[in-house]
Amino acid sequence: MDYQLHHRILVWLEIAAENLRQSLSKDLEVNQKTGANDLVTEMDKATERFFVTKIREHYPEHRVIGEEGIGEPVTDTKGMIWVIDPIDGTLNFVKQKNNFGIMIGLFEDGKPVAGYIYDVMKRDLYYGIVGDGAYHNGHKMSLAPIMSLSDSLAIGNVVMFATNVNQCQRLMRAVLGVRAHGSAALEMIEVLRGQASVYLSFGLRPWDYAAGYAIGVALGLKVSQPDGSPLSILRKEPFIFCHPNVYEEVMDVLKENELGELDE
Amino acid sequence: MDYQLHHRILVWLEIAAENLRQSLSKDLEVNQKTGANDLVTEMDKATERFFVTKIREHYPEHRVIGEEGIGEPVTDTKGMIWVIDPIDGTLNFVKQKNNFGIMIGLFEDGKPVAGYIYDVMKRDLYYGIVGDGAYHNGHKMSLAPIMSLSDSLAIGNVVMFATNVNQCQRLMRAVLGVRAHGSAALEMIEVLRGQASVYLSFGLRPWDYAAGYAIGVALGLKVSQPDGSPLSILRKEPFIFCHPNVYEEVMDVLKENELGELDE
Repeated sequence: MDYQLHHRILVWLEIAAENLRQSLSKDLEVNQKTGANDLVTEMDKATERFFVTKIREHYPEHRVIGEEGIGEPVTDTKGMIWVIDPIDGTLNFVKQKNNFGIMIGLFEDGKPVAGYIYDVMKRDLYYGIVGDGAYHNGHKMSLAPIMSLSDSLAIGNVVMFATNVNQCQRLMRAVLGVRAHGSAALEMIEVLRGQASVYLSFGLRPWDYAAGYAIGVALGLKVSQPDGSPLSILRKEPFIFCHPNVYEEVMDVLKENELGELDE
Repeated sequence: MDYQLHHRILVWLEIAAENLRQSLSKDLEVNQKTGANDLVTEMDKATERFFVTKIREHYPEHRVIGEEGIGEPVTDTKGMIWVIDPIDGTLNFVKQKNNFGIMIGLFEDGKPVAGYIYDVMKRDLYYGIVGDGAYHNGHKMSLAPIMSLSDSLAIGNVVMFATNVNQCQRLMRAVLGVRAHGSAALEMIEVLRGQASVYLSFGLRPWDYAAGYAIGVALGLKVSQPDGSPLSILRKEPFIFCHPNVYEEVMDVLKENELGELDE
């Protein structure tokens, strides 16, 4: 990891977060993307544009995959790629003025190098540098003492559990309880902190998981697709973000699902 | 409202909250009540005992309904009754060391007088005095400009939506999204702040809703059972905590449920 690059990211995140906080006192221009619950604001675009401009200025050879598509199309993983979600939880940003994050994942030749998740309203910054470790506001984090799935909480999306996607209600029944905050950023933070043992989603875009992927690897979490296969940053993927002590249990519950589907 | 009583509650809440925060750095004694996800800690009991002791000292004629049963059994609503949840979200308190609240509701002859919800880790205090209004950290709150159910978020419990209790998935589909934080205290706060338009549960005990009931009435929210009938503080009740501009819509969705059940 290039530490000048790391420090630049920290500075850029502070600037972007402050702009987002200030924007909440103004009227926002909000537009729908695929539907009423898939929103984009002028601030999503402005924040992504801010990062892309900085990256092009300092690292013209790097490429950017951004939620708002301001970077160029990326179809291979060669070299350094930034994966950026300028506002994760835009619906919360608009309707709650809280509970959203900025996420940046840095990948080199498809491998995670570093990740950054900024809980903007709490002013809480989590980052991870692969090979070094994960940090919360500059303090080194360690893996939480979670020992079993049945003694922990899970995190996901209410509609996913309600519609029982891939029979994920079995995971719901295997844990003490499920939480849903409407932002992958905040939900992955709870797993990083050990407040939940597993975060699960069946269709995340690269900008939704890239930052967590890198921080998770840096901390020693298990990060994969639900069938155990590795993640790409080039397409929509099902995604498990999991404490290593419960990963086998989660995989077993999800394998049971497949058997269950055969039974029914 | 007796303002000496009000100020005493503010002081007692600060003391209780500080004790809870300090307890998080120690090992907690945790016991199961009805099951693995229904926990009680020494701090639930100690906090309730603290309030009951203070109340008996200053207001010996008042009665107390507390989650941990330290008050005397209360079978009628005569006179002044305190309804206390010493830790709302005990599972979060134990597993997350965050996302829990202290709640107090004050009722006179069965009518709400005042309510207090303290988000302990955020140090955020919400209270409401019926006839005066609701306050957040001492600042008067006003009703959020929510205009329609379809343009707002709802709050509930993941298992409730997953098992479609009373066909509540229809409410899930009528809103932009659903959040679930594992604490009625924090969930009702989101409705008080206008971060969600409605909180719904089909089986809350008096200590889960009494504080919100009083603050909600003070702020001008609609607080009732899902069929519109009023709440008692003497039994487990289904509970709706709702912005007035969407209350009719929510009632319609829930009435559709009944018709839906006839159809199926």
